[in-house]
Amino acid sequence: MTKSNLHEKFMNKAISLSVENVDQGGGPFGAVIVKDGKLVASGVNRVTADHDPTAHAEVNAIRKACKKLKTFDLSDCVIYTSCEPCPMCLGAIYWAHISHIYYGNSKDDAKFIGFDDSFIYSELELNKEDRQVKITQLLSKEAIQAFEKWDSSETKTEY
Amino acid sequence: MTKSNLHEKFMNKAISLSVENVDQGGGPFGAVIVKDGKLVASGVNRVTADHDPTAHAEVNAIRKACKKLKTFDLSDCVIYTSCEPCPMCLGAIYWAHISHIYYGNSKDDAKFIGFDDSFIYSELELNKEDRQVKITQLLSKEAIQAFEKWDSSETKTEY
Repeated sequence: MTKSNLHEKFMNKAISLSVENVDQGGGPFGAVIVKDGKLVASGVNRVTADHDPTAHAEVNAIRKACKKLKTFDLSDCVIYTSCEPCPMCLGAIYWAHISHIYYGNSKDDAKFIGFDDSFIYSELELNKEDRQVKITQLLSKEAIQAFEKWDSSETKTEY
Repeated sequence: MTKSNLHEKFMNKAISLSVENVDQGGGPFGAVIVKDGKLVASGVNRVTADHDPTAHAEVNAIRKACKKLKTFDLSDCVIYTSCEPCPMCLGAIYWAHISHIYYGNSKDDAKFIGFDDSFIYSELELNKEDRQVKITQLLSKEAIQAFEKWDSSETKTEY
């Protein structure tokens, strides 16, 4: 199979998952994680079914892939997702060090059917005091203790 | 207890969790979710221990609070977190509809001890083609099927 066909094969898998998930009452989103041309894990949107606002297709696929590979670092993996990742999922992709994202629908397509992806992206562009979610700093002198402790720890696992 | 004392009480709890978590080999982050002045759930960073790059304190606290309250909507809750949320956690907070964030350390403090929060924020400000994570759109005509199916579904649970 050519490289281009492989990309289409995995994207079609993510799309099939997204369509099936609607049939099962879930959100229209699916994702697969691939390493060395092989599928490692897949995920679908389970927000309402699982009572978990973080259970997006990409987050679920990342969690499953990491569990399977026993690592928190997916830098040798790529992700195929039926929709452009929202800021939460994009953040998760950065933390997992995934190197390449293939996506089907855009965040504007998601907005068109009522999902908040675009809104959250535009909120993140604002200064924090201008965002809709209120934010207040408190007890910064006390909070820094944990960072100092981490910084001087010789047994920490960095990531 | 005055309102201001209550805020300090819950922030101190988040800070204590962050300090204890370093002692237990985890990242220096803790968070608590509060509803009507009462603690609902707490979370600490479990990324390395659980092999889960999404297991930040805020995400863990949101997951636990939702599980406990049997909902995916925490709009009547606030979060106290020992550090300003990263983009992933901020996204999760938006999806959970939490209305107010109280934080201790800033994202610049986090950068100073080697965490990627600031880097991810700056990546999100770039156009997607300029980011370090490569991104490619594929099969958009096929992907839209799931959105059309969702849009015309009469049994979907919106969120």
